[in-house]
Amino acid sequence: MRKFVPQISLKTMSKYDIIVLGSGPGGYVTAIRASQLGFKTAIVEKESLGGVCLNWGCIPTKALLKSAQVFEYLKHAEDYGLKVEGADKDFDAVVKRSRGVAEGMSKGVQFLMKKNKIDVIEGFGKLKPGKKVDVDGTEYSADNIIIATGARSRELPSLPQDGKKIIGYREAMTLKEQPKKMIVVGSGAIGCEFGSFYNAMGTEVTIVEYMPNIVPVEDEEVSKQFERSLKKAGINIMTGSSVESVDTSGDGVVATVKTKKGEEKLEADIVLSAVGIKTNIEGIGLEDVGIITDKDKVIVNDWYQTNMPGYYAIGDVTPGPALAHVASAEGIICVEKLAGMHVEKLDYGNIPGCTYASPEIASVGMTEKQAKEAGYELKIGKFPFSASGKASASGNKDGFVKVIFDAKYGEWLGCHMIGAGVTDMIAEAVLGRKLETTGHEVLKAVHPHPTMSEAVMEAVAAAYDEVIHL
Amino acid sequence: MRKFVPQISLKTMSKYDIIVLGSGPGGYVTAIRASQLGFKTAIVEKESLGGVCLNWGCIPTKALLKSAQVFEYLKHAEDYGLKVEGADKDFDAVVKRSRGVAEGMSKGVQFLMKKNKIDVIEGFGKLKPGKKVDVDGTEYSADNIIIATGARSRELPSLPQDGKKIIGYREAMTLKEQPKKMIVVGSGAIGCEFGSFYNAMGTEVTIVEYMPNIVPVEDEEVSKQFERSLKKAGINIMTGSSVESVDTSGDGVVATVKTKKGEEKLEADIVLSAVGIKTNIEGIGLEDVGIITDKDKVIVNDWYQTNMPGYYAIGDVTPGPALAHVASAEGIICVEKLAGMHVEKLDYGNIPGCTYASPEIASVGMTEKQAKEAGYELKIGKFPFSASGKASASGNKDGFVKVIFDAKYGEWLGCHMIGAGVTDMIAEAVLGRKLETTGHEVLKAVHPHPTMSEAVMEAVAAAYDEVIHL
Repeated sequence: MRKFVPQISLKTMSKYDIIVLGSGPGGYVTAIRASQLGFKTAIVEKESLGGVCLNWGCIPTKALLKSAQVFEYLKHAEDYGLKVEGADKDFDAVVKRSRGVAEGMSKGVQFLMKKNKIDVIEGFGKLKPGKKVDVDGTEYSADNIIIATGARSRELPSLPQDGKKIIGYREAMTLKEQPKKMIVVGSGAIGCEFGSFYNAMGTEVTIVEYMPNIVPVEDEEVSKQFERSLKKAGINIMTGSSVESVDTSGDGVVATVKTKKGEEKLEADIVLSAVGIKTNIEGIGLEDVGIITDKDKVIVNDWYQTNMPGYYAIGDVTPGPALAHVASAEGIICVEKLAGMHVEKLDYGNIPGCTYASPEIASVGMTEKQAKEAGYELKIGKFPFSASGKASASGNKDGFVKVIFDAKYGEWLGCHMIGAGVTDMIAEAVLGRKLETTGHEVLKAVHPHPTMSEAVMEAVAAAYDEVIHL
Repeated sequence: MRKFVPQISLKTMSKYDIIVLGSGPGGYVTAIRASQLGFKTAIVEKESLGGVCLNWGCIPTKALLKSAQVFEYLKHAEDYGLKVEGADKDFDAVVKRSRGVAEGMSKGVQFLMKKNKIDVIEGFGKLKPGKKVDVDGTEYSADNIIIATGARSRELPSLPQDGKKIIGYREAMTLKEQPKKMIVVGSGAIGCEFGSFYNAMGTEVTIVEYMPNIVPVEDEEVSKQFERSLKKAGINIMTGSSVESVDTSGDGVVATVKTKKGEEKLEADIVLSAVGIKTNIEGIGLEDVGIITDKDKVIVNDWYQTNMPGYYAIGDVTPGPALAHVASAEGIICVEKLAGMHVEKLDYGNIPGCTYASPEIASVGMTEKQAKEAGYELKIGKFPFSASGKASASGNKDGFVKVIFDAKYGEWLGCHMIGAGVTDMIAEAVLGRKLETTGHEVLKAVHPHPTMSEAVMEAVAAAYDEVIHL
């Protein structure tokens, strides 16, 4: 089970400066930064380097969604003056491509581990008192141990996952056969991305969301626009509804859905449960060491120290948004602090979130509702892509950019985008907010024409009654 | 010829606060901002509202390039797990779509003029002394006259445009028949975009560039990568070469090209001349008024005043980069200054430039060569998209982000990008540079995963030896 980097004897390996438990985007990034900083580092992984994100999450889903996007182009080729005959998807090939991308990336992490002289210890790591880690019977010790074991799909009692008819994200990206009808429970990023993908592939998709709006963490206007777009694309959406039970005894499934209007029976081939995550804190020795957890999370301070000296935790296993880029940032801060660098605390108010469905969603900072509840007086601007020249030229007129400023001091409180390619546009808002920009400065930063990014400038202009193209 | 906004008599119309000559992205944006600021404004246009950019430039070319992009997807559908039996372009339909987009946008400007109560005076405007404009025989006067007449395709003596066999950008986007072979003279943004478009459509394209590198204003590494990509796509590229003459007497054309190795004869159906622009300063009355020009440009100060009080000029007709977004920014500054607002001078060192070929190029600030020549000690970082998870997932691994910092004070001197979608990513660098960011701040602005925009963060990390994924 265990694999060692060659030419290093067991004895020299057993003591490290830092051992990282888990090699997801939290763990492997942490290990690389630790090694850069001069720490003798090892990483423990029970499965594939790169963790869920790289093997079963962020990356392979983006590959699937790219196939979906191209398939949409094929279906609408005429809109672009093109002709296509016999356009179809090869579901197996689409899945295979996605797996290939994930494998390639995992190999990339393997290369990075080697290049950075990080020992990869394969196996299941269990924390021991005295800053030790037991990996399937072999003990390793370190001055600092960083827990980055991440999370997995959460199971609801009403939706016991059998991996066949009631599945999680993992099965959803490697189905042998494309379902004709699918129920997606939960409309967060994961649920909506799969819903969008399967719908594009031709599956009849119903998304069931307990909250009154889909993508419930997003600004309400974004959520409403997204719902319109998904419905227009053919996805059936049930909000304010919950799946009470699923009967899997027949050929397919029959879900009993409680709606505002009463109970409804939904037939489908398969149910995808995408109702959030459950942290991987079981069996990793937290209790043996005496590390405190609360509400399924390892409790840490601003520098990711647990209550036990020498034990740290970062990423999904800790409180805060369960996002790959957060895990990476936390890990880097954790080891930079360990190295004695001058480090700033992570600003959890300036973390972007993305949904890579069609259309995409990207946002950072407060929603309008949150900003109002926080007592701010607001200046809000919105610029629809329907008024953008680039959006017209590229046939991507759906969506908008919405910006929220504090009317008094001009602070950029929030930025919310929905439309084509917006996940690559939110970085401007993140950096601008980090640098404490005013709206005026964004407005006077010359955005190139014609781009979708002009919509940011124009939305800011709209907030200050200076919008040109509305 | 002249059209008036209804319900306004000739008498009240003849005197304005501001008359803008030309309705391109300089003129129409200026007019809107002027009107917002309370100026009674008129705009003079001899052809179509929106000028070259909207009708014959930025916008319709982006529509053509979108069709080209989708056609590439069709041709490479298998790479995404999809099947296509027959894929073809309908060249007429592609052109028609592009014209439709341009017409829609022009109507949009018409609507904006009306909404902002700007009088549109159709006809050819000629400046008169005493702050007057003669439009085909009718005189209008204003307190301030803003010249925004723009530019057109430059003609070389060796390439006299006949509109049939030797054409400019305008004909290039409305050809009745797709040429089988095309020679593009000049490898700036316009030449390369058309080269990229026609190559994708199936035309055999040769780009001839006088300078040693294509897209010669770009950083040399970008230029080299771009050349590799275009060649890989099948475009023939001749650098350090010039078209000496073109024989149009036969069925097609025979161009005599002077190369480093001697003279070469190139046969083709058509030659596209894309060797820069010539300003529209003829016959508009500059001499009558006594407005000074130099090297084909109207000379202005920081606030776009010409030497004659009450006469201003903005956009392509003035020195500085001939870009739509520059013209718009100049016009806004010009009228804000006129309104007595506190206005900052335009920072010509922080203007992004984009080429929308495949791959795209976007850049801002100094190239490596310029920065070295300016005497800076540099910190340079480069991150290739081949190491980006999102790029792998979306099949866009070509290209990179390159950042240039001053080693001493950390100033972000330049940012150069080549790859898919980078034209929407450069705004981050523009805003960051405007806000005088340091590299460290860009690095600590959490970029969402997985996005192409992470490459900016990683390139900065590379400059400071903190890169993770290399």
